[in-house]
Amino acid sequence: MNEAPPRIRLFVEAELAAGAEISLGEEQAHYLIHVMRLAEGRDVALFNGRDGEWRGIVAEVAKKKARLRVDGKIRAQAAEPDLWLLFAPVKRARIDLIVEKATELGVSKLQPVMTERTNMSRVGDERLRAIAIEAAEQCERLSVPEFLPPVPLAKALASFPPERLLLTMDETGAGRPIADVLGEVKPGPAAVLVGPEGGFTHSELDALGRLAFSVRVGLGGRILRADTAVIAALACYQAIRGDWRQPAS
Amino acid sequence: MNEAPPRIRLFVEAELAAGAEISLGEEQAHYLIHVMRLAEGRDVALFNGRDGEWRGIVAEVAKKKARLRVDGKIRAQAAEPDLWLLFAPVKRARIDLIVEKATELGVSKLQPVMTERTNMSRVGDERLRAIAIEAAEQCERLSVPEFLPPVPLAKALASFPPERLLLTMDETGAGRPIADVLGEVKPGPAAVLVGPEGGFTHSELDALGRLAFSVRVGLGGRILRADTAVIAALACYQAIRGDWRQPAS
Repeated sequence: MNEAPPRIRLFVEAELAAGAEISLGEEQAHYLIHVMRLAEGRDVALFNGRDGEWRGIVAEVAKKKARLRVDGKIRAQAAEPDLWLLFAPVKRARIDLIVEKATELGVSKLQPVMTERTNMSRVGDERLRAIAIEAAEQCERLSVPEFLPPVPLAKALASFPPERLLLTMDETGAGRPIADVLGEVKPGPAAVLVGPEGGFTHSELDALGRLAFSVRVGLGGRILRADTAVIAALACYQAIRGDWRQPAS
Repeated sequence: MNEAPPRIRLFVEAELAAGAEISLGEEQAHYLIHVMRLAEGRDVALFNGRDGEWRGIVAEVAKKKARLRVDGKIRAQAAEPDLWLLFAPVKRARIDLIVEKATELGVSKLQPVMTERTNMSRVGDERLRAIAIEAAEQCERLSVPEFLPPVPLAKALASFPPERLLLTMDETGAGRPIADVLGEVKPGPAAVLVGPEGGFTHSELDALGRLAFSVRVGLGGRILRADTAVIAALACYQAIRGDWRQPAS
């Protein structure tokens, strides 16, 4: 029997438990059979965000479907970072990148926010969820980030839990250096907020400045694109205050 | 006279000094005249990596060319980070992203390195230089990173200056957390090394381990794509040890 972890990981919605049978939909079956060329008896790793990671044995393949039998548990479900990302939708290719990278960098919840300078209102939930699932499969996460529907920034802030730290990326130069801020804050739930290309308006920054849970943070003197700011801020968070200081599991 | 900094920035090769005249090539002229619709008398910001940033006044536009007159100096040339990036070439779209983001994140020199698991040997210098120039223009850098031709990893290491710190991203889990490493190292020249998808081989990691200037660094327990690792490592470097702690210029 093959004891190395399977190379292919699949996110499924179904419950995972020893002996359970999983029927794959057409798309995942196509991927397994025709792209990865997995035959009956080969194994894959399965996760659903709740039950940990399990070995699944390919029990049956047909033209457009496949059935897996859930075998042993590989990893228990573990606590993952409680880190939200609030981002202003930008151009499609850059949103795709934000979703892929936020997933790899351990974001638990994605909240698109409409700001005064945001001129995109459609975000494309299904495509983005597929990108997040693929990124979660390849980066060995045990979950897929939750997607919330887009809301106006003011509404997102009005319902924001006050005990959660909001790290607002401020490109005006008035924010404190991110490593200084992250070096001081206490552990706990957090969120990163990144505005659109062109930044927040003065009235948005004023409103953010009045919120006790928001801290204005700077990412240096160069002007970063919105997608770069997202990736940079999340990486700094995980490196300094998140789970990159724990030994790899 | 318009005293706000011009919104459009152009990288030019020519010398910049008060009164100098700059003839733009076809591509830049097209961009100014037809994309940005700049008429005679309007201004742009000019930089060449040596002479600082200058205001250029559009002196003449013709169908496929434009002439600028260099007016006052906006910013003096300033010291920029001495940070190299050594990266294994990956798929084209991801290399493009690495070059764009490395430029925004202040890399001074880009060195593609061929590792044992690298199966791309062409990198496409001209296209990548155009991407770096565009990123430098938009992020307000005063320079464009230098591109070196691809070399085998062993050769890059053999000629690596021993006084420069080499931060090797190690996805085996044996590296120390990046924030811990960056919190300890002394200021000075540095380089970030990121391998291909699939990582370095054991013999490459052994060779790196024998070099006094190389430190193996970890980016947490999730498996990051090569482009994500590049952006994350550079952001952490600038945040903790680089120029993000200085006030914005």
